[in-house]
Parts: sequence; C-alpha cells; structure tokens
Amino acid sequence: MTQSTTSNTHPMPILDHHSPIGWIGTGVMGKSLVLHLLKAGYCVHVYNRTKQKAEPLLQAGAQWCSSIADIAQSNIIFTMLGFPQDVEEVYLAPHGLLANAKPNTILCDFTTSEPSLACKIAQEAAAKAIYTLDAPVSGGDKGAREGTLAIMVGGPNFVLEHIQPILVLFGRKILHVGPAGAGQHTKMANQIMIAGTVLGMLEGMLYAEHAGLDMPKVLDLIGSGAAASWSLANYAPRILQGDFQPGFFIKHFVKDMKIAQQESQKMHLDLQGLMAALAAYEEALSEVGNLGVHGLYSFWKKQDKF
Amino acid sequence: MTQSTTSNTHPMPILDHHSPIGWIGTGVMGKSLVLHLLKAGYCVHVYNRTKQKAEPLLQAGAQWCSSIADIAQSNIIFTMLGFPQDVEEVYLAPHGLLANAKPNTILCDFTTSEPSLACKIAQEAAAKAIYTLDAPVSGGDKGAREGTLAIMVGGPNFVLEHIQPILVLFGRKILHVGPAGAGQHTKMANQIMIAGTVLGMLEGMLYAEHAGLDMPKVLDLIGSGAAASWSLANYAPRILQGDFQPGFFIKHFVKDMKIAQQESQKMHLDLQGLMAALAAYEEALSEVGNLGVHGLYSFWKKQDKF
Repeated sequence: MTQSTTSNTHPMPILDHHSPIGWIGTGVMGKSLVLHLLKAGYCVHVYNRTKQKAEPLLQAGAQWCSSIADIAQSNIIFTMLGFPQDVEEVYLAPHGLLANAKPNTILCDFTTSEPSLACKIAQEAAAKAIYTLDAPVSGGDKGAREGTLAIMVGGPNFVLEHIQPILVLFGRKILHVGPAGAGQHTKMANQIMIAGTVLGMLEGMLYAEHAGLDMPKVLDLIGSGAAASWSLANYAPRILQGDFQPGFFIKHFVKDMKIAQQESQKMHLDLQGLMAALAAYEEALSEVGNLGVHGLYSFWKKQDKF
Repeated sequence: MTQSTTSNTHPMPILDHHSPIGWIGTGVMGKSLVLHLLKAGYCVHVYNRTKQKAEPLLQAGAQWCSSIADIAQSNIIFTMLGFPQDVEEVYLAPHGLLANAKPNTILCDFTTSEPSLACKIAQEAAAKAIYTLDAPVSGGDKGAREGTLAIMVGGPNFVLEHIQPILVLFGRKILHVGPAGAGQHTKMANQIMIAGTVLGMLEGMLYAEHAGLDMPKVLDLIGSGAAASWSLANYAPRILQGDFQPGFFIKHFVKDMKIAQQESQKMHLDLQGLMAALAAYEEALSEVGNLGVHGLYSFWKKQDKF
C-alpha cells in the first residue's frame, strides 16, 4: 500500500494482524466477507443480533462480542446490515458505534441504505473525530463468496486508501465516488437502472410467451441485439427452467427501490420507470418476497396474467 | 442452399440474377439493403412514394417502377416502410401488392408493424396463393449498412428457406420464429424490453447527475455489474458527450411502443413499464422526435428536471 500524502495530517488507526477488526452483521453477505478476513490472517471480532448466525464464523476462528459497545473498541469496524433502521440503530443508538468508539476509529458500512442517513452518520462521527465510509456493494452472494464485489465508496478518500488492503479481499472493483453519501447514491443509480431493465425484460418475456412464441429461440435472438442486458442474460434462462431462487431477494430490492424513490423525490425527480417497477414488486412482495428478483414472473403467472 | 423437402408441393418462384427483385421503400434502411442486392448482382426494381429518395439507387443500377402494380410483377418483393398504415396501403389497397401480384409471388415485409396486420395480409395473400413473410429487423442503420441485421421471420418456413440466399446479404442472424405475425410479435417483445431498459438507464443517469456524482466513473462502475445493458454501453457515452443523434429515432420508437401497447391490451396484459416508457417518450415526441432514443435525456434536462 502506498502511504497517502494527506495521511500525515490525519492520525489513522493501525491495521495489522494483531489488532482486531470488528464486524457487525453476519448474514449471507457478511459471513462470506468475514471468512475472507480470517483466511487472510486477520483477527476478527463479530457481533450479530442473532448469535446463531455467527456460529460458523466462530468455528472458523472469529471471536464473539456480546455487544456493539465491545465491538466498538476495534480500530476498524465493518457493518453489513439489512435495512436503514438497522444502520441507524447500530450507529446512532446510545448503545451504538458512535457513542462507544474511540477517536480515529474507522467505520465502514457495506449496507445498501439511505444516502441521507450516511451523511448524518458521517457528520456526527466527524464531531467525534471518527472516520466513516458508506460503501454499498454490488455482485450479490456470489460476488461476496468469490471476493469479486464492486464496492462504491463515499467518504474521505484517504480513509478509503488506508483500508484498501482489506477491501481488496472483498472486491475486484473498488471506486471512490465522492463524499459521504456518494456511495449510497451510486448504488441507488445502479438500482434505478436495474429496476427499469428487469421490469422491461420480464414484460417482454410475458408478451412473448403470451404471443405463443418459441421462447428459447426468441430470447436467444433478442439477447444478441439492442435489448441485451445482464438481467436478460442471467434471469431469462432461470425463468425458462422455473428456477426463481435468489440471487438477490425481492424483499431487498423493494427496500432499495423505496430508498431510491424517497431520494429522487427529495431531488424533485419524477422517475416513472422506477415507480412502475416499485409498484409491480410491492404488489408481489408478500407472496414472493423471498424469491429472486426474477420471481416477479412467477407471481404474474399465478395472477391470471396468462 | 439446400432444397426444402416440402418445397416440391409448393410451386416457388425463380430467384436468379435475371428475374427482377421488387423493392418498395427506399429510406435509410431500405437504401442500404438494396445496395447489397445490387452489389450481389441482382436486378432490382424500386418504388418509393418520394422518387427523389430512390435516386442514389437508380444511379447505382436499380430500375425505377412508377407504380406498385408494376413492382408487383416481380417474383419476389421486399417492403421496408414507415408505419402500419403504409404497410396496409401498399399491401391491401386496390392499387397495392395483393391486388396485382401473380400467384406464387413472395412478399416479404421488413417494416416493424402490427402483428395482427401481418396476419390479415397473410390470410388475404393465401387466398390468392401468394406467399408472405413478416420479417422485422433489429440492428438499425449500421446493421443495414454492414449487412449484420437480426431478422425475425414469421410465416411459412419453406418460404424463408427459399429466400434465405437473399436474406443472408442483409443479416447475420436470421431466425424463423413462428407463423404469420410471429416476426412482429418477436420485435414487439424486443421493443418492450428496450423500453424498460432505456427508461431505467436514463432515470439512473438523471439521478446520478442530480446527486452530483462523477458520471464517467460511476457509469463505468455501474456498467460492469448487474445494471449492464446494451443501452447503457451504447447510449451513456453519447449522452455524456452531448451527442443525441440517431441511431434509432424517437418517432419510430414511439410507433413501436404504441403497437406493443395495443397488442398487449388485446392479450389483456397490463405492462406498466411499457406504459411508463411510452408516456415519457410521447411527452417528448414533438420536441425531440427526430433525435435518437437517448435524446429523451436532453428533453428532460430542458424540462427543469435539473
């Protein structure tokens, strides 16, 4: 790692194999990432609301901490949570990270959450000389397992540079996209694009199937032209096989789209494609929330759309 | 070309370099395709509503016909028109193709048009022992110039097989997708997918720009993940450069989406993504109809969306 020229003016915490790294949130994504840390020889302290979910990590060498205040003693703490309200509680509650961490601690949140919340946390952290990064990821469970995530980082660049040797264990594409909140904004732009693309892709398939077309042939033809997308290439074959497992959960996609809608309304943007996708997924949420995003198709099939 | 086993029972017209090929519609797309025919040594008779647009082809060796009835004497006639009403007139009017063509003539329509109209034409043609194919294309002006179009063919497969030696001059991917109308249905499925994808892509960019993100960096990051699409890869760089030229005209995209909406309503499908895209483009049509489909972004920028 190259020493940042600005880092002299910012006292940075030591990151070595003897100083514990704190980790909160050991779900599907978090678990894979902690395993990368352990494999690289780091000492990892973990905390999770449900201890049971952390068991495999404890067996792999991680150490259990029974409270966020304990975890907060680490030089660097990563969080990978579910919803914005989880982020708010873990960071801002009286028993949370900001109230208990030392000055110069680095807090890095991988959760896809609200840009405005990321800014609020960064502001309150700065008042205590604590560093924060909002660093949502893209690439799903597979990217986490294989350490090939894209990581979109908002916050001070010198902080990102300081923890880069750790982040490279998780991701292949790690980019500083701007100040606090910019990581979340980038993820929102990403999700807005996916929303329109997936909705269009599924509607096109619904139309094609209803028109009685030879689906594999038509999808092959369409997928090689101007309608090509990651969603079409990855979801259409699974849909044809009737496989609607996640991948990326509908319940999380709905959460992301709701944040995107709130943020776009604050910007006075009227994003009709996003609204249409959100409405379609919200209608399906209670029935297929635990399926992958292409599971909307199976919901439609049940809803007399055929 | 392999002789189709079924062709013995169907008397097929001779296609050689001495028998004129008829061509109606010499706009941007048609012109490029006729040039391929001339280059391959075919004798081509052309007709166009505006003769002036055919002049470059006449200079290149095509022969002018002053009426559709004249063109209808060819063994095979291709049409590449603008709107469904043009297709209806050229095929079904008293001075049109069906009224004037001989039995066993092949009529192949490249226009993106209504599936139901393609079926109607096929039915009336069959009553006169005339063969028809609906064969809309994908790949735009570039694909037409380079002979790399995707061609989605509905109609009898033995007719497609008979004219395959000509179609390979125009396209790289030529697929029989079903009976009369199936070519148009395939194109509609394609356009429905593009509608959602383009809308999502443009909305994501609008959000990102409004959030003050570093656009080239963010688009590079987003474009390498699950939001990747042909539209993002091809349109985003042009948008960043302020280049909104077609490519594919907004006015034609609106026509296609309107057909798709009508057809999906006939199927009792409620395609909200398509509706959102159509509404967004219809709002912009009068101002930016002659721009490329990514020109919606320039319309938004003028509309105080910033």
